[in-house]
Amino acid sequence: MRVAVSYNACTSGAFCAPYPTAGGAMEAGTRLLEEVAERARLREGGAGVAAFLRLLYRRSPLRTAELARALGWPIPVTAAVRGELERAGLLERRPGGSALAPGARSWVEETLGLRTREDPLCPLCGGRRIVVDSRWEGLLSRLEEIHRRNPAVDRALDQSHGMPETALRRALAMYREGALEGKEVLLLGDDDLVSVAIGLLSKELSPQGQVYRGLVVVDIDERFLAHIGDAAREFSFSVETLAHDLRQPLPEALRSRFEAVETDPPYTEAGLRLFLARALEGLKAGAGWDLFLSFAPRDPAGQHTLLRVCLELGLAVFSITPDFNRYAGAATLAGSSQFLHLRTTEARPEPLGPYEGPLYTREVRPALRRYRCLGCGRRFVVGPGGEITAIEALKGAGCPSCGGHRFRAGRLLEGVEEHA
Amino acid sequence: MRVAVSYNACTSGAFCAPYPTAGGAMEAGTRLLEEVAERARLREGGAGVAAFLRLLYRRSPLRTAELARALGWPIPVTAAVRGELERAGLLERRPGGSALAPGARSWVEETLGLRTREDPLCPLCGGRRIVVDSRWEGLLSRLEEIHRRNPAVDRALDQSHGMPETALRRALAMYREGALEGKEVLLLGDDDLVSVAIGLLSKELSPQGQVYRGLVVVDIDERFLAHIGDAAREFSFSVETLAHDLRQPLPEALRSRFEAVETDPPYTEAGLRLFLARALEGLKAGAGWDLFLSFAPRDPAGQHTLLRVCLELGLAVFSITPDFNRYAGAATLAGSSQFLHLRTTEARPEPLGPYEGPLYTREVRPALRRYRCLGCGRRFVVGPGGEITAIEALKGAGCPSCGGHRFRAGRLLEGVEEHA
Repeated sequence: MRVAVSYNACTSGAFCAPYPTAGGAMEAGTRLLEEVAERARLREGGAGVAAFLRLLYRRSPLRTAELARALGWPIPVTAAVRGELERAGLLERRPGGSALAPGARSWVEETLGLRTREDPLCPLCGGRRIVVDSRWEGLLSRLEEIHRRNPAVDRALDQSHGMPETALRRALAMYREGALEGKEVLLLGDDDLVSVAIGLLSKELSPQGQVYRGLVVVDIDERFLAHIGDAAREFSFSVETLAHDLRQPLPEALRSRFEAVETDPPYTEAGLRLFLARALEGLKAGAGWDLFLSFAPRDPAGQHTLLRVCLELGLAVFSITPDFNRYAGAATLAGSSQFLHLRTTEARPEPLGPYEGPLYTREVRPALRRYRCLGCGRRFVVGPGGEITAIEALKGAGCPSCGGHRFRAGRLLEGVEEHA
Repeated sequence: MRVAVSYNACTSGAFCAPYPTAGGAMEAGTRLLEEVAERARLREGGAGVAAFLRLLYRRSPLRTAELARALGWPIPVTAAVRGELERAGLLERRPGGSALAPGARSWVEETLGLRTREDPLCPLCGGRRIVVDSRWEGLLSRLEEIHRRNPAVDRALDQSHGMPETALRRALAMYREGALEGKEVLLLGDDDLVSVAIGLLSKELSPQGQVYRGLVVVDIDERFLAHIGDAAREFSFSVETLAHDLRQPLPEALRSRFEAVETDPPYTEAGLRLFLARALEGLKAGAGWDLFLSFAPRDPAGQHTLLRVCLELGLAVFSITPDFNRYAGAATLAGSSQFLHLRTTEARPEPLGPYEGPLYTREVRPALRRYRCLGCGRRFVVGPGGEITAIEALKGAGCPSCGGHRFRAGRLLEGVEEHA
């Protein structure tokens, strides 16, 4: 018989006493974590609240955006948990951010078994694997200069500008994987200026001639294409730009032509699926071509979906680096996203025709906004699916409580400001 | 109409001349790469051969194992490509490894468009995200001491000992993700001594009491369980060990009990699927529990399969770090593997009963070995599926050419020495 079960209760006598769980205290603690999660509608449950407290235990104060990035949660969710923990007396706000309340430290030690405060994440690359160091100082300052002249974000297109360092880090990651040098490179959407980073990197690496064979940017926003074209003229690098709505298939001239594609699509499943399908139209036939994808951090179910879409399209995932990208002012998502390196397999999906469905975040989850009646103070949630469908309707009909016709716009509600 | 196509042939006049492809020379070059790939039976094709040459262009000489690790290929495949490139006059062997042959540099520049030699990978963590630095010197030397006393590898069980630094790096990665402190931790198979690294790390971080709530090692190899138990007694950390064949479901006492599982399963699809299924038996119900998986590097189709198996079991993949683990003497795979951080979703697979199929590499792809007749020099491939099924049969019948009965064993053939 194969199975040989010999359960050794414990191999080291001295330490086998049950972990000090403080019995009922721990159970009550677990219940409290679950309650906080429920009230904050945290999909990660009590374990998520425990992770939040662990971060504060290891380092504090921490700003809400820092917590959100470390946890991979949207800002509003993080703020809701913070609020509930504050109400529960476990957290206090300080000038530099949130910290454990006095007394909460021992509660956390007892309930969660926390005792230590190390961080073995690489301090040089911050766990991003690619280092943007002083070697690239000149390049980065040119990129920052161009970034400062960016057109304003168009939130309807899920735009949210990646930081200059992020654009360069992506370009360096592509370079390292051999996806730039001597290659035909396609960028699907580029309000992050990755094309400019690639162009400047090429000049820096090889002043006597560009390193890439071809560089094409496809974007729906002509303002950005003009901006990129200006940078190319100013800094003498070569790029082709094409104004094109990716709801439509790539034009014939771009199909099966590229060896590498980079994209940071709208953070909806439809956006992901559409941009990846167009990427596959652009890539040459066969296995092993590179696709670099940036996407918002997700909870386990969402992350499962992200990967499933990639696999369904025949793409293999070779690396996933959390918190690789940083964005300016992408408030809801804490300005951070993950970076995935995919490669084609021999399996390719059926070609995708024109796409007519909802695509950008506001189309998939249209924006809800709070409004307050200036007459009586009553609050309304306005937007598709809200109490009132549109603010114009509310203004026309007047406040149901006091009949007033003046309203003040409040904050956008959770989950609507996701960015590309 | 949505589509606005305005194809700008090029936005920067001066650099728009076609890339210097040297016309026919490049085409001939591409053909040569394809031929090398075919002769070496390289699944990655000509693009793979180009990647091989790019590595040598950027840094040389490089040993075959270094090339294999960087490319994520098995050693025999890498050696075959090296041999074909040598025959083609593009590569030469030097004392320190392979290098481009004289004259090949300009050929590579012309054909592949290569010009630069940077490496932006983080020099501190080597792209592994977690740093094992002098902070852990004492711990690491204790771990090395225990590693030196390891039982011999049992290749039938796909064993291949992870390096001490690898065990510690995994323990630190688990710690950072909050998967150790205050947690119930299960290791499925542990010839890599991750349990010892966790035990020593716990002592280092918190001398006054362990950081984990519970630590259980399940392995089929009682020699390793005894070895781990000895280390636990010597260094006073707590661990439970269980001799158990994972072909059988986990015993009742271990089910739905753990918050984190770590495993480095046999590198076969059956092994992966089985160990992940057992991991899910051990993990608590619900979403968000941690699973740390090490697995051999794969070509695009194999990597697609690896991810597909994870998703089919309801697991979400949050990070993939290539070349995270290093192994002592895992020759075929160049002693390197990737590290994946998975989390459970609410979706759980149907329970898996006892498993009776092939599991370890030698069962899935039984070993073929070359033998040479000492009489006439004729060579044979011996093993299941080879010219001769077993060496005993050849010795009994004698050499079909000269009748000799003495044979010398040669090298194992490709793909059979994969390790756990």
